[in-house]
Amino acid sequence: MSKQITHTVRVEFGDCDPAGIVWFPNFFRWIDAASRRFFVQCGVPSWRETEKTWGVIGTPLVDTHSRFVCTATYGDALAIHTSIPEWRAKSFVQRYRVMRGEQLIMECEEVRIFAGRREGEPTSIRALPIPPEIRKLCG
Amino acid sequence: MSKQITHTVRVEFGDCDPAGIVWFPNFFRWIDAASRRFFVQCGVPSWRETEKTWGVIGTPLVDTHSRFVCTATYGDALAIHTSIPEWRAKSFVQRYRVMRGEQLIMECEEVRIFAGRREGEPTSIRALPIPPEIRKLCG
Amino acid sequence: MSKQITHTVRVEFGDCDPAGIVWFPNFFRWIDAASRRFFVQCGVPSWRETEKTWGVIGTPLVDTHSRFVCTATYGDALAIHTSIPEWRAKSFVQRYRVMRGEQLIMECEEVRIFAGRREGEPTSIRALPIPPEIRKLCG
Amino acid sequence: MSKQITHTVRVEFGDCDPAGIVWFPNFFRWIDAASRRFFVQCGVPSWRETEKTWGVIGTPLVDTHSRFVCTATYGDALAIHTSIPEWRAKSFVQRYRVMRGEQLIMECEEVRIFAGRREGEPTSIRALPIPPEIRKLCG
Repeated sequence: MSKQITHTVRVEFGDCDPAGIVWFPNFFRWIDAASRRFFVQCGVPSWRETEKTWGVIGTPLVDTHSRFVCTATYGDALAIHTSIPEWRAKSFVQRYRVMRGEQLIMECEEVRIFAGRREGEPTSIRALPIPPEIRKLCG
Repeated sequence: MSKQITHTVRVEFGDCDPAGIVWFPNFFRWIDAASRRFFVQCGVPSWRETEKTWGVIGTPLVDTHSRFVCTATYGDALAIHTSIPEWRAKSFVQRYRVMRGEQLIMECEEVRIFAGRREGEPTSIRALPIPPEIRKLCG
Repeated sequence: MSKQITHTVRVEFGDCDPAGIVWFPNFFRWIDAASRRFFVQCGVPSWRETEKTWGVIGTPLVDTHSRFVCTATYGDALAIHTSIPEWRAKSFVQRYRVMRGEQLIMECEEVRIFAGRREGEPTSIRALPIPPEIRKLCG
Repeated sequence: MSKQITHTVRVEFGDCDPAGIVWFPNFFRWIDAASRRFFVQCGVPSWRETEKTWGVIGTPLVDTHSRFVCTATYGDALAIHTSIPEWRAKSFVQRYRVMRGEQLIMECEEVRIFAGRREGEPTSIRALPIPPEIRKLCG
């Protein structure tokens, strides 16, 4: 099991739709920030640095599955608990639980890769083997 | 089987991240627009109108599952093909295939509800039975 | 002169564009949050509450002028210092300085109104006289 | 005077806030797309290409001034009319009028630069002299 990191978010007025509740793509914005925060808290350098050392330019998604349990609205403080329950050869599973106090708002499970560039194709990427240094940092 | 509606999107510079590819929450922005476009094309009025007639204020998500197949970048034209493969008592499945020409970029399957407000709780919602008028319009 | 409130923001990977710097509409997202934070810190209730008491549904923009001085990128911590240097009969000026440590990143000056709904037109708004209670709270 | 290019936008449900009107940072998202569309329509290659030829990685903002005249809501079709009324040595003025039919919704005037990278500083940029090829294409 990996470390677990908590990222906190305040829901803003502009994050909500005409129904007065969070417009759901914003949850994915926060989850992506929580994914990055996980690596930062574990000591992984920025993707600017890792591009030079390990060729890693980021952790794009392969698959994502989310379940929405309760609505949230502006003024709410959300805590996103993030972990990596599974490492595979060239991908990993990242899991999120978004809480408002004791109440589960939504949960999400993703498959992501560590991506490197394909030579000569600036917008084409490929999955790299998990860098052992990163895996070790994430405990 | 429902009608199938196509919603087109141009990927903009600002939709892309430092890796030069679409930042994934933007796919959910486009999918949400495609969901709404589906109903508009089928003749369903705006949620402003349906709130008055059937109490429907929108179609929030219960569950969403996406698979990312190819990256996209700015300048790309994407076609999002949307259908409703399944109606349940108080929810429905909406399915999307995002294509760049003949190439599948990503696909997504959601469970959504038709939401009404709970009395006296402006930001709390509940699932309404599928309005038969809407189901009929969606063919 | 009004109170001055500081709102802090972390720049995320997804806030940056293919040039690796903050995509500028995100500054306006943060400024809008800073505007709301100003009122929250001064003790003004949510717009859900003020709609019932004073008919205020939000503070839409009339005019905004911004100057961009330095770029910012992901990993940066920004502090947004917000004040209201001028109150008019039916509008007010709100000013922002976005800093990274001692370095000015951008600054912005807006004219906003307290908006109420026009009767019978749900998406049409009008400028209300400044509610004296709000002005007093903002010192 | 430059060419004038029109970029069209449909306002989506998720572009609107709890007051039911467009949340203003979305106007800047559309304006940034209109800015890029202007160059595309004039025949300027993508910034991926211009980085190789002229060192141009994009057109970041120096200054922006906007005036909001009417609200807009989802379902609206907006036309953004874009021109470059003034070229300076190392910057240019880009102007936008956002219309819904005959009605002016908002207008914006910006100062932008053609940015190149500073050597060895991946996220630091500098203003390049206006590339004469680009100026010629924009007529």
